[in-house]
Amino acid sequence: MTPEEEKEEKKEEKEDQEEQQQVLALDAMKRYRNGEIWDFEDDMAVSDGHGGGGGENGVLLGLDGGTTSTVCICLPMIPSCSHSQLQSLPILARAVAGCSNHNSVGEIAARETLEQVMADALSKCGSKRSSVRAVCLAVSGVNHPTDQQRILNWLRDIFPSHVKLYVRNDAVAALASGTMGRLHGCVLIAGTGTIAYGFTEDGKEARAAGAGPVLGDWGSGYGIAAQALTAVVKAHDGRGPSTRLTNSILQALGLFSAEELIGWTYADPSWARIAALVPLVVSCAEAGDEVANKILLESVQELASSVKAVVERLGLSGQDGKDAFPLVMVGGVLEANRRWDIGKEVVNCISKYFPRVLPIRPKVEPAVGAAWLAWNFYMKEYYS
Amino acid sequence: MTPEEEKEEKKEEKEDQEEQQQVLALDAMKRYRNGEIWDFEDDMAVSDGHGGGGGENGVLLGLDGGTTSTVCICLPMIPSCSHSQLQSLPILARAVAGCSNHNSVGEIAARETLEQVMADALSKCGSKRSSVRAVCLAVSGVNHPTDQQRILNWLRDIFPSHVKLYVRNDAVAALASGTMGRLHGCVLIAGTGTIAYGFTEDGKEARAAGAGPVLGDWGSGYGIAAQALTAVVKAHDGRGPSTRLTNSILQALGLFSAEELIGWTYADPSWARIAALVPLVVSCAEAGDEVANKILLESVQELASSVKAVVERLGLSGQDGKDAFPLVMVGGVLEANRRWDIGKEVVNCISKYFPRVLPIRPKVEPAVGAAWLAWNFYMKEYYS
Repeated sequence: MTPEEEKEEKKEEKEDQEEQQQVLALDAMKRYRNGEIWDFEDDMAVSDGHGGGGGENGVLLGLDGGTTSTVCICLPMIPSCSHSQLQSLPILARAVAGCSNHNSVGEIAARETLEQVMADALSKCGSKRSSVRAVCLAVSGVNHPTDQQRILNWLRDIFPSHVKLYVRNDAVAALASGTMGRLHGCVLIAGTGTIAYGFTEDGKEARAAGAGPVLGDWGSGYGIAAQALTAVVKAHDGRGPSTRLTNSILQALGLFSAEELIGWTYADPSWARIAALVPLVVSCAEAGDEVANKILLESVQELASSVKAVVERLGLSGQDGKDAFPLVMVGGVLEANRRWDIGKEVVNCISKYFPRVLPIRPKVEPAVGAAWLAWNFYMKEYYS
Repeated sequence: MTPEEEKEEKKEEKEDQEEQQQVLALDAMKRYRNGEIWDFEDDMAVSDGHGGGGGENGVLLGLDGGTTSTVCICLPMIPSCSHSQLQSLPILARAVAGCSNHNSVGEIAARETLEQVMADALSKCGSKRSSVRAVCLAVSGVNHPTDQQRILNWLRDIFPSHVKLYVRNDAVAALASGTMGRLHGCVLIAGTGTIAYGFTEDGKEARAAGAGPVLGDWGSGYGIAAQALTAVVKAHDGRGPSTRLTNSILQALGLFSAEELIGWTYADPSWARIAALVPLVVSCAEAGDEVANKILLESVQELASSVKAVVERLGLSGQDGKDAFPLVMVGGVLEANRRWDIGKEVVNCISKYFPRVLPIRPKVEPAVGAAWLAWNFYMKEYYS
């Protein structure tokens, strides 16, 4: 071995050692954190051999993890319950945490948030991990099977091996919240962003939009608001007609001229900050402003075209286009609390193509949908 | 004075001292840097009493400062030259540096870049600051009189008091590069971004667009490319017709599916990276792709509407719309090197409204336009 080779080998050895130390440190930190997160289990009554708050059949966890917040719901596992009775299952606990989109906050922070919110929910209803029967984790940012597998792997480390684990995109929980846990039909989400997601009864799925503002999510809250800001700039520089949006938006933002909008817009890249202007656009349209009205009509077309694309690709409306299918509608843009009702117009538009569309506005939050999905997946696996 | 007050006073004293030290350090650093930048002047021949390379009348500096690069041109100051002879003035020196947009790199870095590029140009032609007659600094990011004043203030520190200083937006240099330094007519810039800027002979000015991609610069290179990416996503998820753009763009980016475009798009916020796809869109349109063709036609409409807005607001085409006026066209999107010629289509479109529009594609770079502007401003101030 030459001195160079010796040096090289020593260097490699040292690198290996360092790597190993890092892995050990990370492991120790993980155990410590996990220890802390799950400490409450040690304090629980030893007598409770049947899984705490969930009774002898244990509990289900449903999680809805988004870019803004993460919600975890704990339901009792009742196998004798029928699909239509799911709605009457009592919510044993509800816990809330921050962002759990790994694209947004990174994997370590996302994991910790998800683990903490599940521990909080179980702790609240006095259940241990051993009493959990199934977990359905529906998180935004899960787009590929690889995302799914990565999350499944670390969920596996947290729970005993008998616990059934399901990982899906958060749109799936939103659909389930309107269909009582059945994956059939289409969901349209329109908040800051927008996506349409659909399933056939035999498990085929398809999505449209959901590609963010640069890639054509024009019907989203961000899309509507960005068009409104553009209309203000165009009215100012002579490229477009004058509009009520100018006064309305400048006043709301505390700006004195349309020129100041440029600085305001690029000062902060948050899409939600721009999307928050949607109610002003709706108000202007309600007050008869033609420019605002046109922006909303175009967003209706965009949203309807996402649904249409999904329904057609999956054949949800049957061969003659006349089968009934549920369309679950979720998100601030589709909420029916205004005279200019974007959601209603989207349904009108879709009805022209698919007369038997069944619009559903869920009465429960998506995390409950995720818990229902957990029940549904578990029942299929064990009782069918 | 209580012990608390005494303590407070000492703390304030200390803070004052620290602040003063910081100011002194910054001043020293500035002098040192400036000293370094301008060291070459000390080495120049003492005999040269008439301003070095510019001859006895000294020299002019023209700067074009953009987000990608900054160019400084040095011309001889020849008062006897006529407007039409400006083109024959020899370029004494040309120096190039990086970004000098203060919004992009911060004020300190922008100042240093501008100072260095001016020193490089003067050093190359063997001139000192004392031989400079006028400087025209045309930089992007100068939108308000406050931006202008801030830059003027520190330019004042660099040059002797007899040097005339002019600060403008970089669009003004682009216009001047096509009009031989006269501020009359309209300039349309379409590269990564787009802006239309116009001047009347009596000094009125107006602009349209230039508000960035969120605020409706759809005719820009970024706008065209973002629409093309959107078309690929829509073709993939069923919202739009299939298009040659899919293969063309995925192949160019080394991606295997349209889904991967989402990750590619948001991995890097650079607008120029997206705008670089424009030639692919033009190629697809030339090959008969309807989707690409429509995107280019729409961008032509957007660009023409910016020019129309400026021309109408300034009355550049006279009361009956039939006066002649120059339209200077600058930027990669408008370059006439393709069969599908975006610039030519824009002119066709504008000619319908203003039959006597005089399209000009400058033969010199905008920095030369800035130097011609310096000549023009100086002549107006001293010889008219």
